[in-house]
Amino acid sequence: MSNEKLAIVAGVGPGLSSSIATAFSKAGYKVGGLARREENLSNLANSLGADNFKGVKTDLTSPEEVASAVAELEEAYGPTAVYVHNATSLLVKPFLDISADEFEMTWRSAVMTAFNGAQSVLPGLVERGEGAFLITGATAAVRGGANFSGFASAKFALRGLAQSLARQFGPQGVHVAHVVIDGVIWGASAKRFGVDREKCMEPDDIAQVYLNLAHQPKSCWTHEMDIRPSTENF
Amino acid sequence: MSNEKLAIVAGVGPGLSSSIATAFSKAGYKVGGLARREENLSNLANSLGADNFKGVKTDLTSPEEVASAVAELEEAYGPTAVYVHNATSLLVKPFLDISADEFEMTWRSAVMTAFNGAQSVLPGLVERGEGAFLITGATAAVRGGANFSGFASAKFALRGLAQSLARQFGPQGVHVAHVVIDGVIWGASAKRFGVDREKCMEPDDIAQVYLNLAHQPKSCWTHEMDIRPSTENF
Amino acid sequence: MSNEKLAIVAGVGPGLSSSIATAFSKAGYKVGGLARREENLSNLANSLGADNFKGVKTDLTSPEEVASAVAELEEAYGPTAVYVHNATSLLVKPFLDISADEFEMTWRSAVMTAFNGAQSVLPGLVERGEGAFLITGATAAVRGGANFSGFASAKFALRGLAQSLARQFGPQGVHVAHVVIDGVIWGASAKRFGVDREKCMEPDDIAQVYLNLAHQPKSCWTHEMDIRPSTENF
Amino acid sequence: MSNEKLAIVAGVGPGLSSSIATAFSKAGYKVGGLARREENLSNLANSLGADNFKGVKTDLTSPEEVASAVAELEEAYGPTAVYVHNATSLLVKPFLDISADEFEMTWRSAVMTAFNGAQSVLPGLVERGEGAFLITGATAAVRGGANFSGFASAKFALRGLAQSLARQFGPQGVHVAHVVIDGVIWGASAKRFGVDREKCMEPDDIAQVYLNLAHQPKSCWTHEMDIRPSTENF
Repeated sequence: MSNEKLAIVAGVGPGLSSSIATAFSKAGYKVGGLARREENLSNLANSLGADNFKGVKTDLTSPEEVASAVAELEEAYGPTAVYVHNATSLLVKPFLDISADEFEMTWRSAVMTAFNGAQSVLPGLVERGEGAFLITGATAAVRGGANFSGFASAKFALRGLAQSLARQFGPQGVHVAHVVIDGVIWGASAKRFGVDREKCMEPDDIAQVYLNLAHQPKSCWTHEMDIRPSTENF
Repeated sequence: MSNEKLAIVAGVGPGLSSSIATAFSKAGYKVGGLARREENLSNLANSLGADNFKGVKTDLTSPEEVASAVAELEEAYGPTAVYVHNATSLLVKPFLDISADEFEMTWRSAVMTAFNGAQSVLPGLVERGEGAFLITGATAAVRGGANFSGFASAKFALRGLAQSLARQFGPQGVHVAHVVIDGVIWGASAKRFGVDREKCMEPDDIAQVYLNLAHQPKSCWTHEMDIRPSTENF
Repeated sequence: MSNEKLAIVAGVGPGLSSSIATAFSKAGYKVGGLARREENLSNLANSLGADNFKGVKTDLTSPEEVASAVAELEEAYGPTAVYVHNATSLLVKPFLDISADEFEMTWRSAVMTAFNGAQSVLPGLVERGEGAFLITGATAAVRGGANFSGFASAKFALRGLAQSLARQFGPQGVHVAHVVIDGVIWGASAKRFGVDREKCMEPDDIAQVYLNLAHQPKSCWTHEMDIRPSTENF
Repeated sequence: MSNEKLAIVAGVGPGLSSSIATAFSKAGYKVGGLARREENLSNLANSLGADNFKGVKTDLTSPEEVASAVAELEEAYGPTAVYVHNATSLLVKPFLDISADEFEMTWRSAVMTAFNGAQSVLPGLVERGEGAFLITGATAAVRGGANFSGFASAKFALRGLAQSLARQFGPQGVHVAHVVIDGVIWGASAKRFGVDREKCMEPDDIAQVYLNLAHQPKSCWTHEMDIRPSTENF
């Protein structure tokens, strides 16, 4: 695999996104990370090495900031091959306790961020007739549970966007996929809540799913797949 | 049926919402209409009579305006029995031609408006342990087509919200339903586009579906149903 | 409504199907009942009156018996307007405890019976360009739960058949609908298992759903709807 | 990967199943093939070598023959690690042209065969607490198209079975997955119908999906994924 390929991970934090960045780095990609918190980016730069990873502090809800961050990464590493949308902000609350602002911010964090990423990288992917746009979904993307009204509404919205992008851009050679993560990902908050690691999803295992999707040949693309731990009730 | 029952139709225009308002009026409800354009409200007041219909000029995307309009209607007619969310704004455009503002306004028109309506009437419905919150969906709520990215994302979001509300409020006696309208509704724009009336859905027929939903007994509630003309390809 | 209309209920037992037969009878239909057990048919004849109900002892898994029973009913009452497929046989068992025969019989009871009914009445409905073919589904038609492998497989099969029939025959004027009953129906076995009536679905309420479906105008047909008690977890 | 692992492919023909058998063979599995036609098995034995592939002539609709074939393969190669259910028989016909026998045989070919395979290998997989049972689905498993009533009903049934097996056996360590193949697979019949290879799915690419599924770690299992060519309209 060429060293020239750029994989952008939007929404870098200590959990899944770091594993995804690492998996693409190991597979020979140059990786660009977008996040609001510098710390998340610098941790990853330390771990992957400054030659292989470049973080750009970005407010993903801003169209201009995302466009400029993508331009900066492509300047450094060449055209984007893979864009992973991994931004979201969980909201679990009875409906009547959710303020209009919270409801909107939940949507903005998960969906407007994806819109901005897609607007920034799709023109190039279409021009080159290749590349992948991978989107992190959740159980709440396919089932609106009680107390999940804000989060489910946002994750449903993201899934609808993903489907439309796949149908519009697939025939132009751009692979859009939506991963329904149906389980708790092992990490700091799983630990904090005392969830048993055996019942969790390993972020490195999930990252492998993204890498496989990015490498599917054009004759055989997945638009949607679910993943969960063997122990998960579904 | 008591004359005291209030049905609110949010998003009053010349098409489906007028038929819904009329159907509930004929069934003995007092009807309240919410819309940004006074003209839409006054037309309906003329047709249903000032005793049976009260319109309140409302920007449905504003939590405060919706809350105050609902209060005004309940002041006039007593507690809400049925709330019909019928606001939306169609957007059919290739993804790369959609601006961030358009994308956001499409979501805001379809989803934030529903959030505001639900926040305003659900506390009363829950307190009384009865009533219906009916939501107008579309094909785009279950299938994100190419060139429908903005609209589908919004309609998916609305469907996710509807499911969560149903799961949270059903056991408290409040019926939340989502109607997937899969076809062209007969009316001014169908005429303009030269669609054959035989291939369209009659707004009065659709209105009957909403009335049936509002009257389903608690032992037998529908959360989701599709409707389409017999001639529709699906 | 004309007295000449024939509604056939396939799979007559003491529960839902009796309520459906009764609802159609009250709405002015002549009703024909098909069942293997004479007793189920004679009970209904006693209740609805010999002028309004005719039962034909039929093994619904036999194409010939169904065809001949439909012919006999149409001879007596004129052409079929509505056919309600309500036959099924519940199977809840861990997969490895199910014999090949049981698995097959579960499919045969739910699906082959529907095939036979559809083959028998659709030619006439198509010729007349009207009528409804209504199919009873269940939770297991949309979700294959553990220990439901045999039943879910059969109910999924029935749903697939229903969709194909709707897509083929809708444009020819024949309304095919699938009702997803998601809850326990009040009746003898609910009583036996000590289920609280408040948590059950009333068969007479469900029957009203079938009647509404049969009367939907062509501009506004439902192919699929779910129904459940307000208290149901879903 | 150990050479002791047995992958069984049920429904061996010249197309996808040969690619799957070959992919598992290359990945170090001993492969067992089940098919009614000896020729299909001997072709594959020639291609993979008698040391790596053993074919057993089997009528997959017979519980006894499947059980005995599985026993024969396990005798030769040790316990089953992966079972791929790839049997089906396409039926595309207007509903009223399908005989009861054809309808039944379509179900029997796709579903009873899977039931028999599952009954034969699941006890061992459960005992060892590992292994994969992979099922080939189709567009018709999630959408019943006009003229697909027989095939869709069978493929829906198979999907319901797959879900129930996944929910029952997942927590016991056995991975059940359902692959929705949404496109034409390149091969003899695609050629015959003059389908452009560019618009087809390459069987070797699909086989890779099965191999990936079989190798997913327990923290991250897919139950369902779709695959289609980039050019496919969906």
